[in-house]
Amino acid sequence: MREKFRELVKRKNRIHANLELIQWDLETKTPLKSRPYLSELVGELSMQDYALSTSDEFVNLVEELNKQKETLTEIEKREIELSMEEIEKKKKIPADEYEDYAKLTSYNQTVWEEAKAKKDFSIVKEGLKKIFDYNKKFATYRRKDEKTLYDVLLNDYEKGMDTERLDVFFSELKKEIVPFLKKIQEKKKTIKEVDKISVPIDEDVQLKFAKFLSSYVGFDFEKGLVETSEHPFTLNLNKNDVRLTTKNKKDSPMSTVFSIIHESGHGIYEQQTGDELIDTLLGTGGSMGLHESQSRFMENIVGANKAFWKPLYNKAGEFYPFLKDIEFEEFYKQINRIEPGLIRVEADELTYSLHIMLRYEIEKMLINGEINIDDLPKIWNEKVKEYLGLEPKNDSEGLMQDIHWYCGLIGYFPSYAIGNAYASQIYNAMKKDFDVEKALENQDLKKITDWLGEKIHKYGLLKDTPTIIKEVTGEELNPKYYIEYLKEKYSKIYEI
Amino acid sequence: MREKFRELVKRKNRIHANLELIQWDLETKTPLKSRPYLSELVGELSMQDYALSTSDEFVNLVEELNKQKETLTEIEKREIELSMEEIEKKKKIPADEYEDYAKLTSYNQTVWEEAKAKKDFSIVKEGLKKIFDYNKKFATYRRKDEKTLYDVLLNDYEKGMDTERLDVFFSELKKEIVPFLKKIQEKKKTIKEVDKISVPIDEDVQLKFAKFLSSYVGFDFEKGLVETSEHPFTLNLNKNDVRLTTKNKKDSPMSTVFSIIHESGHGIYEQQTGDELIDTLLGTGGSMGLHESQSRFMENIVGANKAFWKPLYNKAGEFYPFLKDIEFEEFYKQINRIEPGLIRVEADELTYSLHIMLRYEIEKMLINGEINIDDLPKIWNEKVKEYLGLEPKNDSEGLMQDIHWYCGLIGYFPSYAIGNAYASQIYNAMKKDFDVEKALENQDLKKITDWLGEKIHKYGLLKDTPTIIKEVTGEELNPKYYIEYLKEKYSKIYEI
Repeated sequence: MREKFRELVKRKNRIHANLELIQWDLETKTPLKSRPYLSELVGELSMQDYALSTSDEFVNLVEELNKQKETLTEIEKREIELSMEEIEKKKKIPADEYEDYAKLTSYNQTVWEEAKAKKDFSIVKEGLKKIFDYNKKFATYRRKDEKTLYDVLLNDYEKGMDTERLDVFFSELKKEIVPFLKKIQEKKKTIKEVDKISVPIDEDVQLKFAKFLSSYVGFDFEKGLVETSEHPFTLNLNKNDVRLTTKNKKDSPMSTVFSIIHESGHGIYEQQTGDELIDTLLGTGGSMGLHESQSRFMENIVGANKAFWKPLYNKAGEFYPFLKDIEFEEFYKQINRIEPGLIRVEADELTYSLHIMLRYEIEKMLINGEINIDDLPKIWNEKVKEYLGLEPKNDSEGLMQDIHWYCGLIGYFPSYAIGNAYASQIYNAMKKDFDVEKALENQDLKKITDWLGEKIHKYGLLKDTPTIIKEVTGEELNPKYYIEYLKEKYSKIYEI
Repeated sequence: MREKFRELVKRKNRIHANLELIQWDLETKTPLKSRPYLSELVGELSMQDYALSTSDEFVNLVEELNKQKETLTEIEKREIELSMEEIEKKKKIPADEYEDYAKLTSYNQTVWEEAKAKKDFSIVKEGLKKIFDYNKKFATYRRKDEKTLYDVLLNDYEKGMDTERLDVFFSELKKEIVPFLKKIQEKKKTIKEVDKISVPIDEDVQLKFAKFLSSYVGFDFEKGLVETSEHPFTLNLNKNDVRLTTKNKKDSPMSTVFSIIHESGHGIYEQQTGDELIDTLLGTGGSMGLHESQSRFMENIVGANKAFWKPLYNKAGEFYPFLKDIEFEEFYKQINRIEPGLIRVEADELTYSLHIMLRYEIEKMLINGEINIDDLPKIWNEKVKEYLGLEPKNDSEGLMQDIHWYCGLIGYFPSYAIGNAYASQIYNAMKKDFDVEKALENQDLKKITDWLGEKIHKYGLLKDTPTIIKEVTGEELNPKYYIEYLKEKYSKIYEI
């Protein structure tokens, strides 16, 4: 019976790898007229995966093995536990609706690309409405004792998380961060800040620098690769095949830098999952919040660290010659400049949470039926005005800036904020073990990735996120480390 | 019954598209440590295709429909005819051997790459031996009334072709071409020829020029793309997704030019197969010889034509600045210089046949058991010495230069010679309809590709090659047009 289970798991993993490969192609290079066909193929493979996971054979096997847990290895026990949850979830969604939805989310990504390029929300509005409708419907099917429909979705990305706890979490951040931000803005009026770096750099050169940086922070090119796409992402066939993208905009060469360090954080996590988890259901990174903690750790705590850039600054000038004309101290201040902006992925560390809060509030209302898609542009722009004091010129720099909703990731955004908080909490724990800044200055990034690999990455899905966070940091999610980290760092930079 | 057949065909096409996509990835970018897994996936999908094609359901359906041909459309009739042949063939090969072989040929390509890079035939020798052994074995299973085992394989790529006819074909070429080549070599002694173009050009720039040229000759980037790989090839998921590669060697920028025009010829053929053949078994190009006629037509008759380059020469100088220092007439002579060399894909039009003859003779002997793999390096080098008067410095510029044998393409090489002959025969017919050189000078490549599309491409596999050639040119394969074309062109260039 265990052998049969292993065989089906292997089969599931192959379908997954195949799916990811086609997705990769669709996102990075599929010719225009080939997209509908490959999207159909994605639908068919998702259907195969779905059929396998809900087949009598697989379900019976899991339920039988679940009854004899004591005979199983630790890995198998966890596989069965997660499979029981998946079975639960999938059984409640009718097969044809699931297939339709898979095709829809896959195809709609290319529609979103077009709509964004043309700055025309109407092109993708209908698709987005369908995606939200499906999510509401699925949440209705699956709802047990969750207080709201939105709570059902939240749980998919961060198990155990609910609206109640999140409301508290965000209000805590708000309470501390907003006045601190105000202080900085007051101080900014009295100092002369350098202009934002925006010297144009060829896309080819940006890609080369991206590959260099990715390798520098520890991404292994024998087990992965880097290309370009409309929106940066990380995808993995398995731990030996992890793929990152970057979007190289000629006029903002620094975006590429932080975006690729971010994705590398995701990628290294996947590459460092344990070898013993290959061909199991556990050989991939944990919850979204934990995954984001790894990417944000790399992007901000490592990649925006003075000690990271110090030994690297001359080298960086070889790729981006304009850096040779900027003093290092000035560069450091510049990459950590606080400035409310419209684009989430370009936001500084302080205003970032406001971007997330806004999305959290809107998707919560949409799913819970308090507003609908037609209201979206208006509400988005009102909240941007309220939180950031800004007005989007068009929907491409407003509600169409992120791919998430358009490919079905609803309830995902809060993970970014949770990830930031986890990252600081993990950083606090790491510092007790060794001098992180010294490792960065010594260009010994391996010390950091080894530590993360040993404490977090190697477990894959074997342990759940709350357990890992507890073991690594000694306590549960606590926003105080995030708040302290931000205050300490930016008090220094802005001398307040 | 017909509906069921359509459904299975659609399924077959999807498996094919999926397979091609993974092959594309393996050839162009799969990370080193991911290759074995993706090769396994290829094996599994080939197995699915095999299982479907040999399933009782499919076989019975085909056999039943074969009995009621009069009720079928023209397309269905031809599908059933080809399916009957495929069933015949596959039924004779045991499933497990077929699966092993598919994995072997897929994986062995990467071994070949390594062996070629390290100039060490011993790395890939064992793999090559297995591939030849499998081909011998399969030919033995499948042999009916063919005179030799090799004839069985020949038939796979060029139906109706046999050793007897090929021996005559090659001896005809030999009889005419060898003395003509001698004349040219005598003349060469009395003239001063310019040095071969070998100014280094960045690989990135070469790729940009390759994309430009591909588009210029009519390859449609909404239905295809161009990337790089170890060995140039064309692959198609379907007519809306055709993918070409080029190998850009910094030191020989002109190789890229002719290689991409060659592959574009293949690609345009696929893109122009009829829309009514989508989702049938006929939506792809015909026999290998006919396919090669299209690529060689583009590469030589179009791409090495004075009228092709005349209006393009200034533009070419923008990509390859060294061209600005070369007079156009000199350039034209240079790209059509006759000079025996070691590498087939870089061979001039005259000595090209000698490269094919050599491969034809060797693979014929290997399959018929007259020599074995251990003898290969010695025999290869002896024949190269005999036919071309040259000695390879190592096996990478000898028997490892072409991917074909290493991925199982045995009996394929003769198609190149047949393709050349067809190309000249087709060119002769085209000239009766319009002034081809004038179209080239007017940059009206569409006139040429439309003609090819209408007369050849649109039929896909609906008609067989002998029928198409007969309809287009009024007669069967006849090497005289090839010989006339070569003599006329090179008599002018060398003024003999």
